[in-house]
Amino acid sequence: MTTPTYSLYYAPGAASLVVHWLLLELDVAHELRLVDTKSGEQKRPEYLALNPNGVVPTLVVDGQPLFEAAALLMTLADRHPRAGLAPALDDPRRAHYQQWIFHLANAVQPLFRIWWYPHEVAGIAHADAAQAHVRPRIEAAWERLDAHLAGNGPYLLGDTVSAADFYLVMLMRWSRAMPKDALQWPHLAALAAKLKARPSFKTLYEREGLTEWA
Amino acid sequence: MTTPTYSLYYAPGAASLVVHWLLLELDVAHELRLVDTKSGEQKRPEYLALNPNGVVPTLVVDGQPLFEAAALLMTLADRHPRAGLAPALDDPRRAHYQQWIFHLANAVQPLFRIWWYPHEVAGIAHADAAQAHVRPRIEAAWERLDAHLAGNGPYLLGDTVSAADFYLVMLMRWSRAMPKDALQWPHLAALAAKLKARPSFKTLYEREGLTEWA
Repeated sequence: MTTPTYSLYYAPGAASLVVHWLLLELDVAHELRLVDTKSGEQKRPEYLALNPNGVVPTLVVDGQPLFEAAALLMTLADRHPRAGLAPALDDPRRAHYQQWIFHLANAVQPLFRIWWYPHEVAGIAHADAAQAHVRPRIEAAWERLDAHLAGNGPYLLGDTVSAADFYLVMLMRWSRAMPKDALQWPHLAALAAKLKARPSFKTLYEREGLTEWA
Repeated sequence: MTTPTYSLYYAPGAASLVVHWLLLELDVAHELRLVDTKSGEQKRPEYLALNPNGVVPTLVVDGQPLFEAAALLMTLADRHPRAGLAPALDDPRRAHYQQWIFHLANAVQPLFRIWWYPHEVAGIAHADAAQAHVRPRIEAAWERLDAHLAGNGPYLLGDTVSAADFYLVMLMRWSRAMPKDALQWPHLAALAAKLKARPSFKTLYEREGLTEWA
């Protein structure tokens, strides 16, 4: 028996989902370690020693714990280039690939943190106001991404799927209970349909025990 | 006369600063295009055609407009490897390099957006509450980064400076008028001192017309 190169600390449906999905897509050996976020396991000393931010995911790569979902997704796609999920460094699409991943990490994902934890931004008394203010910003992000796909799709990089698309679809999934979910934008919906049709998606859902947004 | 490969749309002291700083460090030909953000030039149709997010920076690379400061910084460091500001793809430090850049982009920079635009998160009536809530979160980010540098510094990757450090120092600069600025953390202050001692920093300040935090 060999030790898997990758150990993923995850919680079902959390930001770890895209890392899990990539591990399945890349078809590399890995083990899963469930983090019980409901009981606050991610804030305990043993977990904080791996990831001082106290969030999932953490991916242990060759014995080294690493964090930040978007960084892990880029690292995995680069380490397994045969899957073709990341343009090579000398590929002209590389700059666009990085642009989209950072756009999602910097300008879209943080809005969901406000949506999920609205008490965090201005106190529990103003949680409703925080949600009301972040909703149009999330919708504006979908609007811009949909416009990009309309002119340059069907994937973020055009004709070729990349790790950036998996990240986008994970974030779209997070909008599923919002008043206007991301599937209301037609080019985003078409992208999600393509990615959800991949065999890895079914495996991912089975392994994380997910049913919503299947 | 040849057209420069790079044209940077910037505003003094904004997120474009780190891209400008990298262009100087890498010593590559570029031209600067000032965006008058005070008059809202970044929201006009001509600029939105380059960058639909309506923010600086935009970097035009070989005729292609690209956005997201952190993505641009990675792209520049990779395109000019001789400067040694990015570990190569097969370097074991690459994964850590990406981790830190995404950590800054996803978990630190968005907090400053709340600090600068507190009315955005829960309305103008709750702007003070938004600032009061984000301040300890920014301070907690400095605490974690300082602890990392204490054990693994003096740079984010250890003994070698990388593009990630320039990004961190730009974000530290943004805290200069906060009640507890980032220089109150000793290992962060030592990192900033090292980067500010580089000749590129003086040139950057001269070209952007900056004086604060020199």
